[in-house]
Amino acid sequence: MSFACPVADQRLVLTHIVRMPELAKSNRFAEATSDTVDALLEAAAEFAEGELAPLNEVGDREHSRWNEGAVTTPTGWREAYGKFVEGGWMGLSAPVEWGGQGLPHSLTAAMMEDFNAANVAFALCPMLGLGAIEAVEAHGSDELKRRYLPKMVSGEWTATMNLTEPQAGSDVGALKSRAVPAGDDSWRVSGTKIFITYGEHDLTDNIVHLVLARTPDAPEGTKGISLFLVPKVLDSGEANDLQCQSIEHKMGIHASPTCVMGFGENGGATGWLVGPERGGMRAMFTMMNNARLNVGLQGVGIAERATQRAVAYALERKQGQRAGLPMPIADHPDVRRMLVRMRALTMASRALAYYAFGQVDRETLGDREAGLRADIVTPLVKGWCTDVGCEVASLGIQVHGGMGFIEETGAAQYLRDARIAPIYEGTNGIQAADLVARKISLEGGLPFDGLIADVRAEAQHEQLIALTDAVEILVATAREAEPNDRLAGSYALMTMTAVMTAGWLMERLSRAIDMGEAGDINAGRRSAIEYFLSVIVPEAIGLGSAVESGAELLFRAPAEELA
Amino acid sequence: MSFACPVADQRLVLTHIVRMPELAKSNRFAEATSDTVDALLEAAAEFAEGELAPLNEVGDREHSRWNEGAVTTPTGWREAYGKFVEGGWMGLSAPVEWGGQGLPHSLTAAMMEDFNAANVAFALCPMLGLGAIEAVEAHGSDELKRRYLPKMVSGEWTATMNLTEPQAGSDVGALKSRAVPAGDDSWRVSGTKIFITYGEHDLTDNIVHLVLARTPDAPEGTKGISLFLVPKVLDSGEANDLQCQSIEHKMGIHASPTCVMGFGENGGATGWLVGPERGGMRAMFTMMNNARLNVGLQGVGIAERATQRAVAYALERKQGQRAGLPMPIADHPDVRRMLVRMRALTMASRALAYYAFGQVDRETLGDREAGLRADIVTPLVKGWCTDVGCEVASLGIQVHGGMGFIEETGAAQYLRDARIAPIYEGTNGIQAADLVARKISLEGGLPFDGLIADVRAEAQHEQLIALTDAVEILVATAREAEPNDRLAGSYALMTMTAVMTAGWLMERLSRAIDMGEAGDINAGRRSAIEYFLSVIVPEAIGLGSAVESGAELLFRAPAEELA
Repeated sequence: MSFACPVADQRLVLTHIVRMPELAKSNRFAEATSDTVDALLEAAAEFAEGELAPLNEVGDREHSRWNEGAVTTPTGWREAYGKFVEGGWMGLSAPVEWGGQGLPHSLTAAMMEDFNAANVAFALCPMLGLGAIEAVEAHGSDELKRRYLPKMVSGEWTATMNLTEPQAGSDVGALKSRAVPAGDDSWRVSGTKIFITYGEHDLTDNIVHLVLARTPDAPEGTKGISLFLVPKVLDSGEANDLQCQSIEHKMGIHASPTCVMGFGENGGATGWLVGPERGGMRAMFTMMNNARLNVGLQGVGIAERATQRAVAYALERKQGQRAGLPMPIADHPDVRRMLVRMRALTMASRALAYYAFGQVDRETLGDREAGLRADIVTPLVKGWCTDVGCEVASLGIQVHGGMGFIEETGAAQYLRDARIAPIYEGTNGIQAADLVARKISLEGGLPFDGLIADVRAEAQHEQLIALTDAVEILVATAREAEPNDRLAGSYALMTMTAVMTAGWLMERLSRAIDMGEAGDINAGRRSAIEYFLSVIVPEAIGLGSAVESGAELLFRAPAEELA
Repeated sequence: MSFACPVADQRLVLTHIVRMPELAKSNRFAEATSDTVDALLEAAAEFAEGELAPLNEVGDREHSRWNEGAVTTPTGWREAYGKFVEGGWMGLSAPVEWGGQGLPHSLTAAMMEDFNAANVAFALCPMLGLGAIEAVEAHGSDELKRRYLPKMVSGEWTATMNLTEPQAGSDVGALKSRAVPAGDDSWRVSGTKIFITYGEHDLTDNIVHLVLARTPDAPEGTKGISLFLVPKVLDSGEANDLQCQSIEHKMGIHASPTCVMGFGENGGATGWLVGPERGGMRAMFTMMNNARLNVGLQGVGIAERATQRAVAYALERKQGQRAGLPMPIADHPDVRRMLVRMRALTMASRALAYYAFGQVDRETLGDREAGLRADIVTPLVKGWCTDVGCEVASLGIQVHGGMGFIEETGAAQYLRDARIAPIYEGTNGIQAADLVARKISLEGGLPFDGLIADVRAEAQHEQLIALTDAVEILVATAREAEPNDRLAGSYALMTMTAVMTAGWLMERLSRAIDMGEAGDINAGRRSAIEYFLSVIVPEAIGLGSAVESGAELLFRAPAEELA
C-alpha cells in the first residue's frame, strides 16, 4: 500500500502548535519561512515515500546480517543511505558552522516523523546521529568538533550511543567499561557494550561511537562516568581496536543491526574525551534527551503509517450490505471507531511531540522557560507517544481482521517495529519515574505548575477541565508522598499528564481549523479531535485510582508470590 | 524458563467459581469428585509442562512447512500428539457413549488453559476438535456419529472448522462454497476456504473437515447455509477430493498451519450433512460458541505463562541497589506494578472464563438459566480474556526491558502468539456487537438483568458497586438506542461488563481466601485481587464516555477523511 506523508497535518501543527512563524522572527531561525517549511515538508515526503517506504518490508524480511564482524544491510539500503547523504537531510538543524542548515529542530522532527513512518529501521541510524551531533557540539573540544562534526553533519559518517552493558541497563551507573590515558590527549577504551543500534554496518566508511566508560580512580556510580568518542577508523586510516561481536535476533526493526560491541580487546580502542572527565552523564543526557524526543516520533510515525493503511483497507474491504450494496467495513461502527481512534491518537501524539521540539527551539533562542517546559514534556513524549505507537499499530492489525495477522499484509510489522520504542532510550517506566521524581518538582514545581496553568487558561472541553483538575490534585499529592508511593502511581500519572497536554494542544488545533487556518485539512480531523476530548480524555481520568493506589498494595506480598 | 501450571489457582476457581462440588452432586457429573479434579489437574500439568512447553519455542522457530499439499509439523510435534492421544485428553468431557469420560467442560477448560499456556500453537489443534465433537454430537445423524465420533473423541482423527472464504469473513452469509446431492446420502462439496487452522498436517491419518456450503436453490445469506462433514480420507481408504493449497506466513502461532483449502477441484469432495439442510448456522454456532470460550482460554493461558516468566526474570535481574545490595527489578515500584497487574488480569480472566464453562456444565444438567448466563458471558470471555492475553504479554515484554525484544528470551513470542486471539472465531468487535445487539436484550433483557442483580447482591468494593451502577445505566440506554449508537459504544461496554463480572468473581475468590479455603494459594493473590478492584475496575468506569459517545461523532466525516 502506498504511503503519503501527512504534509497538511504537519504544516498545521508546525504553524499552530510549534508556532513556526514566531520562531522565524528570530535571527537564528530567519530562514524558517513558510515557503521553506513547505518546500522541506514536500521534499522530505518525496524522499520518505519514494526511497524509504519501498524498503520497509524488504528490511523486515531480509534483516541485517552479521558475518565475522561485518554487517550487511538489506538490499537497497546502501543506495538509499547514499541519497539521504546527498539530500543533506542529516544537517537540517545542525550548526551552519559545521555544514548544517541551522533550521529549527521542529523541522527535523517533521522530517524524522516521515522517515520513521516510511521505514523506522532505516531512520534509527540518522536518529542516533542527531543526538551524537548535539553531544559533540555541546561538550566536545574544538579539535574534536573540527575533526568529526563535518562528516557527522553531512551523514558521511554515522554515530552510535554506547551505554548499556550486560549488567548495566536502566542502572547506567553500574557500567564497567574502562578508559585509561594513552599519554597523548587520547585514551584507551575497553569493555563490552550491548544493544548498540547500528554499531556496525556497510552504509558508510566510518562510524563514530560515543562510549561511556570509567577512568582510573573514578568514583562508583554515575559520577565516575566519562564520555569518549571512539571512531571505527582512525584518522590514519587504521582500524580502531573494536569490533561487532554479534547482532540480535529481534521481534521487529529487523533491518536495524543491534550489536554487541567489543572495545579494546587488543590493548584498547583509541578515543577522546567528550566533555570533562567524570562529566559523562551530562554529555550523555544531551544526547539522550534528543533521542527520547526522537523515539517519541517513532511512535507518531508508525501510528500515521498504520492509520493510513487501516483506513485504506477498511474502505476497500467489503463485508455485509447496506441498501443491497456491499458495505466497506469502514462503515461498520466498531471498525469506524477504531479508525477514528487511530487518527485521534496519531494527531494528538504528533501535536505533543512537535510541541516539545518547538520548546527546544525556543530554548536555543535563550528562552529558559521554554527549556524547562521541554524538560517537563520530554518523558511524556517518550512515554506516551511510544505507547500510542503500539496501541495504534495493534488497532491497525485488528481493523484488518485475519489479514492483519498475515505478515505479507504489512500491518503486523508496524506493531513488531513499534514494540521496541517503549523500551529503549530509557524504558517508559524510567520516563514515568523521571516525571514524578524530578520533573514535577523541578525548580520548586513552578515549571510544572506553569504547564497546568497554561492548560487551564485555554481548556474548554469539560472533560479536559476535569482531567486538568485531577492532574493538579494528584501532582500536589505526589509531591508530598513517599518516593515509593509516588513511583507506584507514576505510569498512570505520566499517561494522564500526557493526555492532558495533548488534549490542550488538540483544542488549539481545533480552533485553528474552525478559524479556517488549516488549509486543506479535512473534516476527519475535527471529529478525531472531538473523539480525543470526549472519549480518550475521560479514559485518562479513569487512571486516577492507579495514581493514588500507592506502594503498600504493590509490596504487600513478596514478588515470589506473584509467580 | 520452566513453566509450572497454576494448579492451586485452578483448584480455587474450580471450587469457588465453578462450584465443582455442586456439579459433582449430579448423576451426570458424579465422577467429578475432588480427588478426580486434583488428579486431573496434576496430570494435565505434567503433560503440559513435560511434553508441550518444551516444544513451544521449537514450533515458533521451525514453523509448520508446506510442500506440494503436504504439511510437516515441527520437530517433536508428532510424538507429542501421539502422547496426547494416548493420554485420552481429547475425550475428557466427551460423551461416554463415544469413548469419552463425560466429565464437566470446566475441567477440560482447566486442561486447555494448561495446554495453551504451554504451547498455544499445539493446543489449537485439539481446541478445534472439541467444537467439532460437540457439533457432530448435537446435530449429526446416528450413522455419522458412529462413523466419526469415536476417532474424533480419541483424538486419532483431528477436526477443522471451514467457514471463511476470501470474500466471506465476518460476513459468513456471503460464502459461496457449494454442495450438490450425489444421489446416495452423500453430497459433492466444492469451494475454497481460507484461514483453516490445522487444515492439513502430519499428526494423524485422517482429518475431519466441517465445511459450510450452499445447497442448490438455497436462499442468499446465512439462511441458505448447510454444514457438511468432509473427511480427508474416505471410509474406503481413498483420498477425498480436497487439498491444502498453501499455508500462511503469520505474526505468531507459527507451528499451527493456517491453510487455504480447496474442495472439489476434481468433481466434488464427498461429504455428509451435519444437521438439516439450510441448518448450517445453528450447527456452526454450536461449534463456534465452544470455540469462542476456548479462544478466551488462550488469553488466560498465555497471560499465565507470560506472568510467570516476567516474575522470574524480575526476581533474577538486578538493577540499582538497596542498602548496598543489588536490587532485583521486581522491587522497583513500577516493575512491581506491572507484575501485580499481570497477575490480577490473569486471575480475573481465568475466573471469568471458567465461570462461563461452569454455566455450560449447568446447562448440560438442564439448567436453562445457566445456559442463558453462558450465552451472555461468552462474548465477554472471548473479547475481554483475549485482550487480557495481549495486554499481559505486552507487559511481560516490558518487564524484560531490552531483553524482551530479543526473540531468544521468549517473551516476544507470547505477544505474537496472543495477538491472533482477538481476531479469530469472530473478531472482538463482533463479540461486542453480539453483546449489544443480542445478549443485553435476550429474552426481554431478563438474563442480563439477572447478571447485574447477582453482581449487585454480592459486590462490596465501592468501585465495583460504582461500575455496576454505570453498566446498569449504560445498558438501559443502549437497549433504547439506535442500532448504530449501540454499536458505536459496544466495545467499551463489553470491556466494562467483563471487568464488572470478573470483579464480582474476584471478590468471591477473595472471600474464599479469607475463609482459609484456598489451600496453598498465597498472599500475592490477595493483593492482585485488591489491585483489580481498586485500580482496574476504576479504569473500566473511565470507559463510560466511550459507551455514550454515539455513532454521530464517528460518522461525522467520511472515512476517506481519516486517512
